[in-house]
Amino acid sequence: MTSYLHHIRACNTHDLSDFRPFRVGGDQVGWVRHALADHLTRFDDVFDVGQDGIFLRETLGTFAARSEAMARVLDALVADGTIQRLRREAYPVVTAWGAEPLLKIDRSAVAFFGIRSFGLHINGFVRRPDGLHLWVGRRATDRRIAPGKLDNLVAGGQPYGLSLDENLVKEAEEEAGLSADAARRAVPVGAVSYMMENEAGLKPDTLFLYDLELAEDFTPRNTDGEVEEFMLWPLDQVAARVRDTDDFKFNVNLVIIDFLVRHGCLKPEQPDYLDLVMGLRRPL
Amino acid sequence: MTSYLHHIRACNTHDLSDFRPFRVGGDQVGWVRHALADHLTRFDDVFDVGQDGIFLRETLGTFAARSEAMARVLDALVADGTIQRLRREAYPVVTAWGAEPLLKIDRSAVAFFGIRSFGLHINGFVRRPDGLHLWVGRRATDRRIAPGKLDNLVAGGQPYGLSLDENLVKEAEEEAGLSADAARRAVPVGAVSYMMENEAGLKPDTLFLYDLELAEDFTPRNTDGEVEEFMLWPLDQVAARVRDTDDFKFNVNLVIIDFLVRHGCLKPEQPDYLDLVMGLRRPL
Repeated sequence: MTSYLHHIRACNTHDLSDFRPFRVGGDQVGWVRHALADHLTRFDDVFDVGQDGIFLRETLGTFAARSEAMARVLDALVADGTIQRLRREAYPVVTAWGAEPLLKIDRSAVAFFGIRSFGLHINGFVRRPDGLHLWVGRRATDRRIAPGKLDNLVAGGQPYGLSLDENLVKEAEEEAGLSADAARRAVPVGAVSYMMENEAGLKPDTLFLYDLELAEDFTPRNTDGEVEEFMLWPLDQVAARVRDTDDFKFNVNLVIIDFLVRHGCLKPEQPDYLDLVMGLRRPL
Repeated sequence: MTSYLHHIRACNTHDLSDFRPFRVGGDQVGWVRHALADHLTRFDDVFDVGQDGIFLRETLGTFAARSEAMARVLDALVADGTIQRLRREAYPVVTAWGAEPLLKIDRSAVAFFGIRSFGLHINGFVRRPDGLHLWVGRRATDRRIAPGKLDNLVAGGQPYGLSLDENLVKEAEEEAGLSADAARRAVPVGAVSYMMENEAGLKPDTLFLYDLELAEDFTPRNTDGEVEEFMLWPLDQVAARVRDTDDFKFNVNLVIIDFLVRHGCLKPEQPDYLDLVMGLRRPL
């Protein structure tokens, strides 16, 4: 049985006792599964692996040295089959949003090291006489993550080296064919966060959310092969699909529940209202 | 120095080591300061006072019996000067929003027993060609709480015996002269929560938030003496006043920060953006 709350629980399912902290320069920046930690002991010029945590060696004192060492480790992990393949997209490793990155790491390894990741999602909506409608994308079936699942108009991870604004414009163009001007009209409206265990490891993730009102005659056009088709659905239909099925990509459910809260489609009289409202923002 | 974050910290300042749990029928429903707990030992037909908590006696097995016993205690606490005076407004004592009340208690004693309270606030706004404007009230100078401070268009605690909807209509009429039809157009948009220590005790509070768009020619009219005057301010002016001063009532700052987040006036590029977004919803 599904429900709105079921999606929040699913995105926050993990067992931290399977992991140990990953630390860089005194700060915890992630979590590593015990089996992987044991596997990493062979890189003893890079990691100091203990029972209570795995530490990046202090001799790696700069962003460049840490990033280079980690890249070497990842090459070996791809070679031995631990990681399937590199994504060739760098993510920053930070202690908190806005902090100076301590190193960069290929996107493919982010969950293996339980690194905090950030992303942005745009709710593309149309105000019609019969109520709000939301653009829904169907992910291409050849995607590695959540193939064929339903998605937001625009959704993307936050890579190293781009500002959030630059990434917004880039993703909006690639995923939905939006002009830079149109993308910049998207209104930042908050964030959702969750921590989910998956096959690779742990995903403590924060999604920055935007609402973008679109004209009735606009039709999104995907240019990067990530989206198979776009559909404009009445908000009630989107809500029912989220509530009753697992058809949306796991974290997109949270983005839509937040949209339903902010636009008054969920009522505070609902007994689980506060569980939903509070559950969308898990302290990480 | 003030800042947006300063208000969130102020509303979440407390030291739980000064308190012990207050339990009813196996569930914790509040917190009592140690000095008050010692003082309550004399009501040994009502409370079982231990070092690890204060328990309402199991012999008080019904809502009516618990409420009556608590009312007797409060009369004595008013008589001995612990509580200044009763408010003659009952609040429910619940383990969670939507749960069956275990007893009711006079509003004056809610913080003394650290009971979870709920309230509702309406952001009354006007969409003008030059941008959003927000209605701001100035509290009457004879108010017991936050006299002369700035407030939302409508704000009220959630008493025992009224639904949230009924309370919304009642408060909107009393505080701002809004018709029931106008009040029902208010859109529920989420909630903020905080836990604040004050002179009386502890206030774990949750505010249900509503946005209400008003016509340019509407002027609020207070009918219950709580508000001295209403002013319609550009949102930038409201934001600066929140950020730079303590002129707004303590918890109204949180309501307005949430409004600024949802309406895109705060940008995710701001380094403390996530501290604000997450800080508005403290798990209670």
